[in-house]
Amino acid sequence: MLGHGNDRCETGGVSDPAALPVRRGRPGYDQRQVLEVAVQVFNEHGYDATSVAALAARLGLSKSALYHHYASKEQLLEIALDEALGALEGVLAGAGDAGAASARERFEQVLHGAVIVLVDKLPFVTLLLRLRGNSEVERAALERRRAFDRGVTAIVRAAQDEGSVRADMDAAVTTRLLFGMVNSLVEWYRPAGPEGAAELADDVLRLARTGLAGR
Amino acid sequence: MLGHGNDRCETGGVSDPAALPVRRGRPGYDQRQVLEVAVQVFNEHGYDATSVAALAARLGLSKSALYHHYASKEQLLEIALDEALGALEGVLAGAGDAGAASARERFEQVLHGAVIVLVDKLPFVTLLLRLRGNSEVERAALERRRAFDRGVTAIVRAAQDEGSVRADMDAAVTTRLLFGMVNSLVEWYRPAGPEGAAELADDVLRLARTGLAGR
Repeated sequence: MLGHGNDRCETGGVSDPAALPVRRGRPGYDQRQVLEVAVQVFNEHGYDATSVAALAARLGLSKSALYHHYASKEQLLEIALDEALGALEGVLAGAGDAGAASARERFEQVLHGAVIVLVDKLPFVTLLLRLRGNSEVERAALERRRAFDRGVTAIVRAAQDEGSVRADMDAAVTTRLLFGMVNSLVEWYRPAGPEGAAELADDVLRLARTGLAGR
Repeated sequence: MLGHGNDRCETGGVSDPAALPVRRGRPGYDQRQVLEVAVQVFNEHGYDATSVAALAARLGLSKSALYHHYASKEQLLEIALDEALGALEGVLAGAGDAGAASARERFEQVLHGAVIVLVDKLPFVTLLLRLRGNSEVERAALERRRAFDRGVTAIVRAAQDEGSVRADMDAAVTTRLLFGMVNSLVEWYRPAGPEGAAELADDVLRLARTGLAGR
């Protein structure tokens, strides 16, 4: 089922979640919109606590109409997590593509790109970050997340080796603390707020580069 | 009921959670131990999803024996949240107590002290940070958390005014990002790991002060 997360182009659906409540109770959700509403409901009530019946009710669909779109609640979870993980993995894989960048430059590209992904796919990444690992799908996602962390830590270690990142701290701790900063966005960032994704990504980079001193 | 959180000394109970499973199923939990097990169960399964019956079963107690210790599940939540919030508020109130510290010094004391509280009261702060605001008790705790954030932001703003903290970023954003770093500890810090609370607090301060550059 992995890979369904990029159906956006095939379905051609309107994917602005703010537009969804207007359509609640009406027929005609496309596959993308069902996914977006499901992720929203999972984030509000918790994945485990959400029944297929509750999800169908929120969409104003019958359970069988919902099953027309997706085989199971678990499939919705799997596709949603794949969308978040795929985007983050893309940032890691793409770091340095623009040329023979230093490890430090690659790390900064990953930090910046991760902020953009978090803002762009906020509900999907929120779901990912709140996983408890209660099922096979969740454990597989957590393993991909750990692989991502290892990839980032390897870049930080390479940057320490080239002398461009402080070596007085463990590379894994540095990575976790800076990604703690990035991941906290899912708790407090609101799309309607004063800062856009690009400005926020710049702020994260500023603080990561020189800290409170700013010099 | 606020204030019960500090019963540790009165009850004199062994409060090492690792020691608790051995006693599961036996009578003789004291009030503190019941609280600690409850917090652990809330964190594992979610507060809303935990019934009093499930909690009693985990403790090997009857529901009436559990009610002998606490009036309700909500009271357990209230006391646990008060313990986390009280400790964090104590850090904020105590910053600068050692003398006429600058705002920058007070902010660093708050960051450092918050890390120590998180490590020392990890399950309690984890519970606080995962709140959804579904009840009056939760909303009151979230309001105390917001007041804490405002207090910290005011110190950052004062530090900007005295010229000791970069002024090219919004003080509230700076506070949120650095506390994102601190709060991420509840996701990845393990007491059995290589770093103790003091070393971790030093790492957070190092990164906050001068960032990746380390100079």
